[in-house]
Amino acid sequence: MSIITLLTDFGVSSPYVAQMKGVLATRQPDACVIDLTHSIPPQNIQAAAITLDDLAPWFPAGSVHIAVVDPGVGSDRRVLAAQVGEWFFVLPDNGLISPLADRFEVKRVVALDRPEFWLTPVSKTFHGRDIMAPVAAAIARGVPLEELGESVGDWHRVRIPRPNIQARRISGEVIFVDSFGNLITNISADDLHGEDTFRIGDHVIQGLVRSYSQRAAGQWVALIGSSGRLEFAVVDGSAAQQLGAGQGTAVEVDRYEAAT
Amino acid sequence: MSIITLLTDFGVSSPYVAQMKGVLATRQPDACVIDLTHSIPPQNIQAAAITLDDLAPWFPAGSVHIAVVDPGVGSDRRVLAAQVGEWFFVLPDNGLISPLADRFEVKRVVALDRPEFWLTPVSKTFHGRDIMAPVAAAIARGVPLEELGESVGDWHRVRIPRPNIQARRISGEVIFVDSFGNLITNISADDLHGEDTFRIGDHVIQGLVRSYSQRAAGQWVALIGSSGRLEFAVVDGSAAQQLGAGQGTAVEVDRYEAAT
Amino acid sequence: MSIITLLTDFGVSSPYVAQMKGVLATRQPDACVIDLTHSIPPQNIQAAAITLDDLAPWFPAGSVHIAVVDPGVGSDRRVLAAQVGEWFFVLPDNGLISPLADRFEVKRVVALDRPEFWLTPVSKTFHGRDIMAPVAAAIARGVPLEELGESVGDWHRVRIPRPNIQARRISGEVIFVDSFGNLITNISADDLHGEDTFRIGDHVIQGLVRSYSQRAAGQWVALIGSSGRLEFAVVDGSAAQQLGAGQGTAVEVDRYEAAT
Repeated sequence: MSIITLLTDFGVSSPYVAQMKGVLATRQPDACVIDLTHSIPPQNIQAAAITLDDLAPWFPAGSVHIAVVDPGVGSDRRVLAAQVGEWFFVLPDNGLISPLADRFEVKRVVALDRPEFWLTPVSKTFHGRDIMAPVAAAIARGVPLEELGESVGDWHRVRIPRPNIQARRISGEVIFVDSFGNLITNISADDLHGEDTFRIGDHVIQGLVRSYSQRAAGQWVALIGSSGRLEFAVVDGSAAQQLGAGQGTAVEVDRYEAAT
Repeated sequence: MSIITLLTDFGVSSPYVAQMKGVLATRQPDACVIDLTHSIPPQNIQAAAITLDDLAPWFPAGSVHIAVVDPGVGSDRRVLAAQVGEWFFVLPDNGLISPLADRFEVKRVVALDRPEFWLTPVSKTFHGRDIMAPVAAAIARGVPLEELGESVGDWHRVRIPRPNIQARRISGEVIFVDSFGNLITNISADDLHGEDTFRIGDHVIQGLVRSYSQRAAGQWVALIGSSGRLEFAVVDGSAAQQLGAGQGTAVEVDRYEAAT
Repeated sequence: MSIITLLTDFGVSSPYVAQMKGVLATRQPDACVIDLTHSIPPQNIQAAAITLDDLAPWFPAGSVHIAVVDPGVGSDRRVLAAQVGEWFFVLPDNGLISPLADRFEVKRVVALDRPEFWLTPVSKTFHGRDIMAPVAAAIARGVPLEELGESVGDWHRVRIPRPNIQARRISGEVIFVDSFGNLITNISADDLHGEDTFRIGDHVIQGLVRSYSQRAAGQWVALIGSSGRLEFAVVDGSAAQQLGAGQGTAVEVDRYEAAT
């Protein structure tokens, strides 16, 4: 059974999601369709790119991931189909695939130009349903990417903020807020030590905790979250609300130096 | 694999949706169950009827659509199973099927009266789970409608507001607000010209845009949305919030006259 | 096709849910994965336990239910796999299974201790993805519980509030608020009579209605909800908002005495 996933900014339970699922069920009835999320902040390409990078690799090889965060729909921006690592992607050419392309081998990228694989007619406002869904169904059926469009190398990249890592200090930022109000940063576990000192807003936090349960309710903690990144949380509370923090909020790490 | 869909006003992630899915999984384990939406405004039959009309035809022939927007549950209102166009429907007899019946052939409508296809006992408050779900499973298994109840012709119709179309002017209204705050109207693309003038509240909009990307953030636009209807939007904003508009807000079109 | 369900407090459309679905799709591609709900109030074990008890028995025998409401993640709390009644459960050892264990036969409970069934590495913060999902996939594939860990008898129970039932009066409480604002109590239909008198806050309600449609909009009603419990509702309104009521609000029933 082939797997097709959906990541959009349409909002939960949007009728537009259901229309895409109708097209997928019609074109590839055997596919298992899984929602990644429909709660990307509207038209926030950075948040979508990072979320897709966090989620897509958890799925089996051959899965087809559709990402529709598409402020340029109806302009002349292209729609891409790509194989990156072991997964397929169908998405607008606006940088959504950048973080994955930084981590996995980009095997092929094509710009969709074969309307025989699309719905007829194609609306001007909803390429997710009219182009991306039927193309994803075709890929799930085994159609090779080269039959869907011409290979391109000049696809769009976006800048995903990277931390500034120095000997004594790391400067990064919040890249995502989760549904608990936890602040997820762009600093990787690999660059941290359990005895580091963490700063966000007015808060100075000494050392990483291994889990929320190590501190009392209301305390600020720094920990390595399930995404493998540094995150800030308030035990049983919302760090985002307490600090008024969100995407882009600065974060600093004073790196631990073992006594010699 | 048979397809069964669900449209309700229960709210996203409602436990009641899960109970219906449990009944469907028990009665027809091979069905693929797809959520259309659970975000119909509570007990809003008009919004539910229009949404069902927008979504059901995207699914393959033979799909079984369950719609549970049912303010009359526990009264003596009937529950129907119907074949309209190529799809099956199981829903209360309150007009939910009206817009589809206006567009597609009504092949058969039965009033459910065979308790041997229902759960035992049937609660007074949740016929979606106790009657509609097991009946939908039976239809997906291939049970003909005539075994589920007596054919009826006097099923309930609801008035769906239609636009008043004149030579120089069209008067319509907002029938739905989507999750972006875009205002979807009852005026079809077929009746419009790209050079028409559009009025909603204090806003006068000259001409249709082909997509949001043709105007700057904050601008009001009129366009043909993915539903094939005229809609009003604020680029990167919420038209519904800015105007305080919603279902029933009046809309006018001054029709373009080509110079002769 | 095996069925695996998910109940969490992650919030609707959480990326963490999608990661769990990716693990399940990788480990057991043939499973049908169904969302019970992701809207449990964060870390509210009582609400989660009651909701799991309301939902799990609607699914077919052999279904595997994963419940991740896990304030103790990263502490030394155990993770359990259990067979209770005809269903399997994978959940933290914090009492989530108590109400089901009160109603159905507890056939086996094991504390998971075989890392060969888990992801590698296991994060400190997300055992739902790293331990519970792959173990649920193993159960769905037919791995017996005894291969997943040692049997235990001292698993955690939680107190689920039970009503005080006397000859003339029943004292209970609200245990759950549904998405309509209806107040669901811990008083069972079996203990009630249609002519009883119900008290909540300042409201005195005479007799049960069979359905919302029996009273006008705005009226308070008491009825037996789809969960088989006494609930309070405001017709076309939110009882929870009007009363400022929620989990724990006291409820009383003056029991009907037939004239003799």
